[in-house]
Amino acid sequence: MTTTQHQHTNGVDVPALFGTIDAVRAAPEIARFQFRAQTRWVDGTYNRTTIDTFHGAGAEQTRTEPFVVEADHPVVLVGQDRAPTPAEHLLQALGSCLMSGLANIAAARGIELGEVTARVEGDIDLLGILGLDESVRNGFEQVRVTFHVQGEAEARELASLVEQARRRSAVYDVVTRGVPVAVDVATR
Amino acid sequence: MTTTQHQHTNGVDVPALFGTIDAVRAAPEIARFQFRAQTRWVDGTYNRTTIDTFHGAGAEQTRTEPFVVEADHPVVLVGQDRAPTPAEHLLQALGSCLMSGLANIAAARGIELGEVTARVEGDIDLLGILGLDESVRNGFEQVRVTFHVQGEAEARELASLVEQARRRSAVYDVVTRGVPVAVDVATR
Repeated sequence: MTTTQHQHTNGVDVPALFGTIDAVRAAPEIARFQFRAQTRWVDGTYNRTTIDTFHGAGAEQTRTEPFVVEADHPVVLVGQDRAPTPAEHLLQALGSCLMSGLANIAAARGIELGEVTARVEGDIDLLGILGLDESVRNGFEQVRVTFHVQGEAEARELASLVEQARRRSAVYDVVTRGVPVAVDVATR
Repeated sequence: MTTTQHQHTNGVDVPALFGTIDAVRAAPEIARFQFRAQTRWVDGTYNRTTIDTFHGAGAEQTRTEPFVVEADHPVVLVGQDRAPTPAEHLLQALGSCLMSGLANIAAARGIELGEVTARVEGDIDLLGILGLDESVRNGFEQVRVTFHVQGEAEARELASLVEQARRRSAVYDVVTRGVPVAVDVATR
């Protein structure tokens, strides 16, 4: 598809965006994706996850180079603080998913964005994961996302971008509604 | 607390681990944590999340330097593939949380680990987030985690580490059970 610079809004190739939706409408089976991550233990609470291939658009897809993401616990949680905690990565996944969606939606609506930030906070009582109180859940009790959106549109329209991003976010859906997770182990 | 090298198993400071649990048992209010992430839009589906301060152990905690995590969409999803997708970050958060927990549990049980990996896969039908089929959810339909665990213990004991990690994982809990997420917006 040929596009010209003025067809990009917010860095989003708008014709490609609508073209993708049209392509999927014509061949819904290409919308079936599988994403993957491979975590390797390094030392203590420190580990490294490689993100490379995925299946989607009807084919196996490979990155030019694998992405690497690290995790650790902070010192107060018996780690060495070499990377964000997994719980913080979860908040990041939520914030980034809403943000990517918001930029696409704004582009589709022809709204030029200015500065856009999302602060994500999660409250957690570690009595759960420490096994000290069975009435306390292991995960976050509640999560709050606060967007600040600047852009070339009325406040109502800018707020509507956040709402539509929430309505179409993969990570928001999983984090709020849950998903079945099968955990298997091979010992060798 | 003074520890010596032989009190470390798998790089985990085992006396500090049990000391932390004892400290929380004596003062449960220090177990209340708040984790945070701040996502900033950069360009198109590309954004950058800063992870720095958190509240926990009864005080505000700050890293020596903020961690930065990036996200983008791949080219087939109208991004430029500059970083993992948010959905992949979610899988990474799950794999890393189970892995950090497993290493702590193994250390507490005196089991020396060898190579440990976790492959995380998530199936998603993008008809949901593309708005093309209202009967398809936005998020993953199912997620699978496959651990390979080597270590100085019987296969049954190694498998039990995975099971206990699952039972005490903050991210597994959120991803399988969901959490309330409030999304607010300020337009300025």
